[in-house]
Amino acid sequence: MRVWFSERHRRHATDPIRFHDEPYAEVPARAERIRTALLAGGFTDWAEPADHGQAPLLAVHTPGLLEFLQTIYPASRGLRPATAFFQADTFATRSARRRSPHPWAQVGYYAFDIEAPFLEGTWEAAYWSAQCALSAADAVLAGECAAYALCRPPGHHALADQIGGFCYLNNAAIAARYLQQGRPTRVAILDVDYHHGNGTQEIFYADPTVFFVSLHAHPDIEYPFFWGGAEERGEGPGAGFNLNLPLPQGTGDAEYLAALDQALAAIRDYAPRYLVVSLGLDIAQGDPASLAGFAVTTAGFRAIGERIAALELPTLIVQEGGYRLDTLGENAVAFLRAFR
Amino acid sequence: MRVWFSERHRRHATDPIRFHDEPYAEVPARAERIRTALLAGGFTDWAEPADHGQAPLLAVHTPGLLEFLQTIYPASRGLRPATAFFQADTFATRSARRRSPHPWAQVGYYAFDIEAPFLEGTWEAAYWSAQCALSAADAVLAGECAAYALCRPPGHHALADQIGGFCYLNNAAIAARYLQQGRPTRVAILDVDYHHGNGTQEIFYADPTVFFVSLHAHPDIEYPFFWGGAEERGEGPGAGFNLNLPLPQGTGDAEYLAALDQALAAIRDYAPRYLVVSLGLDIAQGDPASLAGFAVTTAGFRAIGERIAALELPTLIVQEGGYRLDTLGENAVAFLRAFR
Repeated sequence: MRVWFSERHRRHATDPIRFHDEPYAEVPARAERIRTALLAGGFTDWAEPADHGQAPLLAVHTPGLLEFLQTIYPASRGLRPATAFFQADTFATRSARRRSPHPWAQVGYYAFDIEAPFLEGTWEAAYWSAQCALSAADAVLAGECAAYALCRPPGHHALADQIGGFCYLNNAAIAARYLQQGRPTRVAILDVDYHHGNGTQEIFYADPTVFFVSLHAHPDIEYPFFWGGAEERGEGPGAGFNLNLPLPQGTGDAEYLAALDQALAAIRDYAPRYLVVSLGLDIAQGDPASLAGFAVTTAGFRAIGERIAALELPTLIVQEGGYRLDTLGENAVAFLRAFR
Repeated sequence: MRVWFSERHRRHATDPIRFHDEPYAEVPARAERIRTALLAGGFTDWAEPADHGQAPLLAVHTPGLLEFLQTIYPASRGLRPATAFFQADTFATRSARRRSPHPWAQVGYYAFDIEAPFLEGTWEAAYWSAQCALSAADAVLAGECAAYALCRPPGHHALADQIGGFCYLNNAAIAARYLQQGRPTRVAILDVDYHHGNGTQEIFYADPTVFFVSLHAHPDIEYPFFWGGAEERGEGPGAGFNLNLPLPQGTGDAEYLAALDQALAAIRDYAPRYLVVSLGLDIAQGDPASLAGFAVTTAGFRAIGERIAALELPTLIVQEGGYRLDTLGENAVAFLRAFR
């Protein structure tokens, strides 16, 4: 299986950032650890993404969001006193009456949390992360059984016009829409990240041609809190084509695999032409970005990969979260080996 | 003129807090500086607030907000890793689909920014700050020409069910409603704080019995960004009873006083029974909590006080913002002297 990767992820140079007096979890070492483990694990077919331009991004995101992502960092010069990054502070909530052109107002309109900081190279990294997903989609369209986009920054919390949770562009959603090639081809997105993929859900919430299925920590106990309940089933023509399987704190291999079987059965029933997997590795025990925490083992990741591969669908795997650096690589290898 | 003040403001012990790598501006020294200057300036009639209970707070705020304010700090134990305070991170924005009982979700539902941190004594300080305003209102109801509530924390950014901008309970709104004593008595609120009093505006936006008039930095260039445009005139029965006079960067005495005259003419036309002044001292030159900045001098504050006093209305003055510690006291004295 070919792996799509761009060194430009390092331009999102988050190492010096601290939030709530703790290190920022979404750091360049994440991608590097996965890369190193894959190379050691025999994944030798690596490719640089081709540039698909902004058109496939605009098939998912609003022009306003893309403009914002490209302009906010230079616009915030002079508003970043001692630190090099810029983040939201004041948000457009239910009581807002107007928009404002001020950079603080722009970031407070387009962000839903403070967890998507802007650095000089954030747009470049996000752009090429999406291009990795698009290039992997090209491979699947060309007939590959599976392809893996080692995306960084991740994407599944980004909505059509909002960012948050380390995410700027929704790589999985962009790839899913691109796989359709302008037709109503059925695509299923299976999100196994520990956190609910609220961005992906919302992008396709009214769309029956993309079935979004997510296993995640229950939003009563975990970020992103404001989405992810089992009662969220889609709306309008998309009603019934959104499936959330929220799981309790401490979920281990057995419980996770039982829920996964339920998700896979629903995907089988949907009979999609393509499968996109939002691969979060943060369901591993001890992941530092979780409040509650799951306890999936490396053997669990292997079993998850094998059961998804058993669907025998053309599969595009997009990297999402996973923040425990010491187990990230082995868990990625355990999962991905099923698709070789 | 009697001054109402409670030492309990110190329970909102914000000194160690840093935001965006800078010191938090709304610190206990603010109230202490004003107090010291007033004592030196001959204001010798000081009083402790009486306890009016929560009923007058519930006349303005929702039960949910009051419950939240009293429970969030203990509920956030274990979510404040190295720091002693708790603040919002993830917000209920336009795309939110559900609420969650998690403390992070509660604070993200009730806050519109990250600028209202919670400490152990925040509720106690906010409660007694509101009681200062209520006790000053009692004095005005009893026939005093003027009374001053040295409130801390301030209040004018707090809405019926949202907090932000250093504010938790809307002291001015609570006092204005209390002055009505359950009747449709006309009250005008004049907000001269540098920042738009979005909370007060929203509380009375549909209410013709409270006329809200605000002079402030234009929200295109200043916090709170999402409210404060001149086009916000009230709604429903309150249409026409909200007047915003947004002013440009660098506004000095002459420009400020010209806008003030417009505000005062509108208040005269309204013919209120009582006047509440939301007194912000952050229109002073060099105030550190402003992005753009005004340049009102101490002589300007004296003139502002004199022109407001010339309305000859029973007047309740409620302390709001003002963060430049070295000029806070003299500017307060310059303003308040007109009401002695």
